[in-house]
Amino acid sequence: MTLVVQKYGGTSIGTVERIHAVAGKLIARRLSGDDIVAVVSAMGHVTDELVSLASQISSDPPDREMDMLLATGEQVSIALLAIAIHEKGHDAVSFTGPQVGIVTDPVHGKAKIQAVRADRVREALAQGKIVIVAGFQGATADGQITTLGRGGSDTTAVAIAAGLGADVCEIYTDVDGVYTADPRIVPAARKIDVISYEEMLEMAASGAGVLQLRSVEFARNHGVVIHCRSSFNDHPGTIVKEVDETMEQAIISGVTYDISEAKITIRDVPDRPGVAATVFTRMSDANVNVDMIIQNVSEDGSTDISFTAPKTDLTRAKRAVEEVVSELHARTWSVDESVAKVSLVGAGMKTHPGVAAQMFRALAEADVNIDMISTSSIRISCVVEGDKVEQAVRALHTSFGLDADEQASDMRTLSGRGE
Amino acid sequence: MTLVVQKYGGTSIGTVERIHAVAGKLIARRLSGDDIVAVVSAMGHVTDELVSLASQISSDPPDREMDMLLATGEQVSIALLAIAIHEKGHDAVSFTGPQVGIVTDPVHGKAKIQAVRADRVREALAQGKIVIVAGFQGATADGQITTLGRGGSDTTAVAIAAGLGADVCEIYTDVDGVYTADPRIVPAARKIDVISYEEMLEMAASGAGVLQLRSVEFARNHGVVIHCRSSFNDHPGTIVKEVDETMEQAIISGVTYDISEAKITIRDVPDRPGVAATVFTRMSDANVNVDMIIQNVSEDGSTDISFTAPKTDLTRAKRAVEEVVSELHARTWSVDESVAKVSLVGAGMKTHPGVAAQMFRALAEADVNIDMISTSSIRISCVVEGDKVEQAVRALHTSFGLDADEQASDMRTLSGRGE
Repeated sequence: MTLVVQKYGGTSIGTVERIHAVAGKLIARRLSGDDIVAVVSAMGHVTDELVSLASQISSDPPDREMDMLLATGEQVSIALLAIAIHEKGHDAVSFTGPQVGIVTDPVHGKAKIQAVRADRVREALAQGKIVIVAGFQGATADGQITTLGRGGSDTTAVAIAAGLGADVCEIYTDVDGVYTADPRIVPAARKIDVISYEEMLEMAASGAGVLQLRSVEFARNHGVVIHCRSSFNDHPGTIVKEVDETMEQAIISGVTYDISEAKITIRDVPDRPGVAATVFTRMSDANVNVDMIIQNVSEDGSTDISFTAPKTDLTRAKRAVEEVVSELHARTWSVDESVAKVSLVGAGMKTHPGVAAQMFRALAEADVNIDMISTSSIRISCVVEGDKVEQAVRALHTSFGLDADEQASDMRTLSGRGE
Repeated sequence: MTLVVQKYGGTSIGTVERIHAVAGKLIARRLSGDDIVAVVSAMGHVTDELVSLASQISSDPPDREMDMLLATGEQVSIALLAIAIHEKGHDAVSFTGPQVGIVTDPVHGKAKIQAVRADRVREALAQGKIVIVAGFQGATADGQITTLGRGGSDTTAVAIAAGLGADVCEIYTDVDGVYTADPRIVPAARKIDVISYEEMLEMAASGAGVLQLRSVEFARNHGVVIHCRSSFNDHPGTIVKEVDETMEQAIISGVTYDISEAKITIRDVPDRPGVAATVFTRMSDANVNVDMIIQNVSEDGSTDISFTAPKTDLTRAKRAVEEVVSELHARTWSVDESVAKVSLVGAGMKTHPGVAAQMFRALAEADVNIDMISTSSIRISCVVEGDKVEQAVRALHTSFGLDADEQASDMRTLSGRGE
């Protein structure tokens, strides 16, 4: 008997018709002999409506009460989905996050899961029931209702899969899986069949939006196999799992991009020890999430420092930079909001020198200027001009043999990911 | 320090503006020095919308899942009300029924409260917070979410008042209190200042809709003083409490009516022992809530049996009657859906003979024919033709000196209820 945890997002259960469709899928899977736990989000529009109601009452509602409010969205979904399954003559039971034993820390609005006590789910499964669980929510040890923040339902699904020792955690979404690049930009992008946790983490962190970083981290830490697939068809999607390091890895798994960051440059900073520490301590104190950093070579005893940070942090970042500029007697500073980051991700690059050189050459041939560079062992990222991001992504996708009609390219070694 | 439990219904918090208004009332009361617990219902339209969603999915949704669904309505209300109080700069905390320790039996959809563990409310009050509690809901001992059914939020408020030993449970509604008769029918009806539990129970049972029977029963059993008053003004309403029996009671507290019942008559039933038992066992088995029963004097060895029951039970009642008629070889049966019941309620009638006689005379003078009669120690009810119900109520209200301009009437003794 296979134990499957499935997760359906707000779009997948956004209407009465779609709730019936998901109920049908769950029943069919149950009838095939699998034990099924379905984790669901709030119906598509519901969370926005609740947030709007709260914002009509207060511009700064307490996090605890927002959790109390928002947790109702998923509770409506689980009840309706259980009702739909009963209507089709099958047995289902719904549980809220607190009921199912999702224990979190007390950080309302972005709580972290500390434990899953899945006894009640096990009991219901043993009775042959389809179990429906509210995603995105949990409770502290003393019973306060919490929500997990962005990507919370994915994390709930992975956590329950870990708690139950499920065979797979299927994350249903509106695309067929994880692609070698965003198909809206690269029509020749291909769906990836299997990807390692590490690669998926780098792809999620550098812009691939299909799976949430947190849920992939949770899955890696607990060895949960994720199957990311479409809720609108039965095609196999992308499997995220531990990939045997002794097998030969694909050099490049995918090309990602991110246009959500801005670049800040501080000019003519006196070049003495401790300057960078001062700048980034200030950014950290201001809760600015700094990504890439570059410091130019000093010429005349002064230097330029550039860094990127999310545009959503920009107001806080600017305030902090103004203070730093005056404190360090720097000459001036500037912000460029029209930058983009393009990244190559691939576990195989660890053992293949020359990937960076090929990347820079491909970008140069596409007339894309590189502004900043950062690397990890399985990722290379370049900041480029924002209006050249699409040609950069397409050039890299082609250069590394990822286009659909080039699957046999010798630059892309497929062994090791064929299971 | 006074400890006050207040209950606000769906209309009182039906819009963002009204939520702000209730928040203002709660804060003002807190600032006056009282400890405040507010029990709230779902916003006016919310429960209907949730029921409609469920009915689009199933014509027969499981009670457990309906409870899971409907309980979200009150949870939205408590969060929004707590947010509104915070927005005005005061401290509040919301709790669901399960969180606040409302323990119920497992009868989903109409669960009964078995215990209230109000420790968490006491802690929050001790911290100076205004406490907001979701009405209508609780949880079984093993954590299943339940709802209390019709009038559930009133019952929650009374139960929490009992659990906390509150000084008063204020039930806010859209009228100024309990009236001597429905003011829409009797413009001269007066608000009752104080009424005993027993009288209030009889009035609620015989048609007065302001307070739910269950909550009054709960209040009587636990000695909770109810203050039923308007959420739209600050006028004192009606106090429901234990009234000292040694004090002289009002002979008549009010006149009520009920047009929700139908009369069923079975004709020419053989008049032998056990016939009535057969009829009403069948009705009980069919879950028909029989109210008044009359059996005519036998003439030729056969008799007529009439009874009243809620029109909502009529389909089941008719099916059961058909079986009984054939089984008992009765001649025929009929249903009259155009009947009404008018009732006089008053604790003083225990010690004042002649009330029934005066009631029958008043109805006769108003040209209202009496069809059936039933009495308790503090109530007399008559079934009359439905289209004469208004003139019956008005005639009784005047005859017993209840009209507003006759407060000094010697038929109505006010001593004993003036505190």
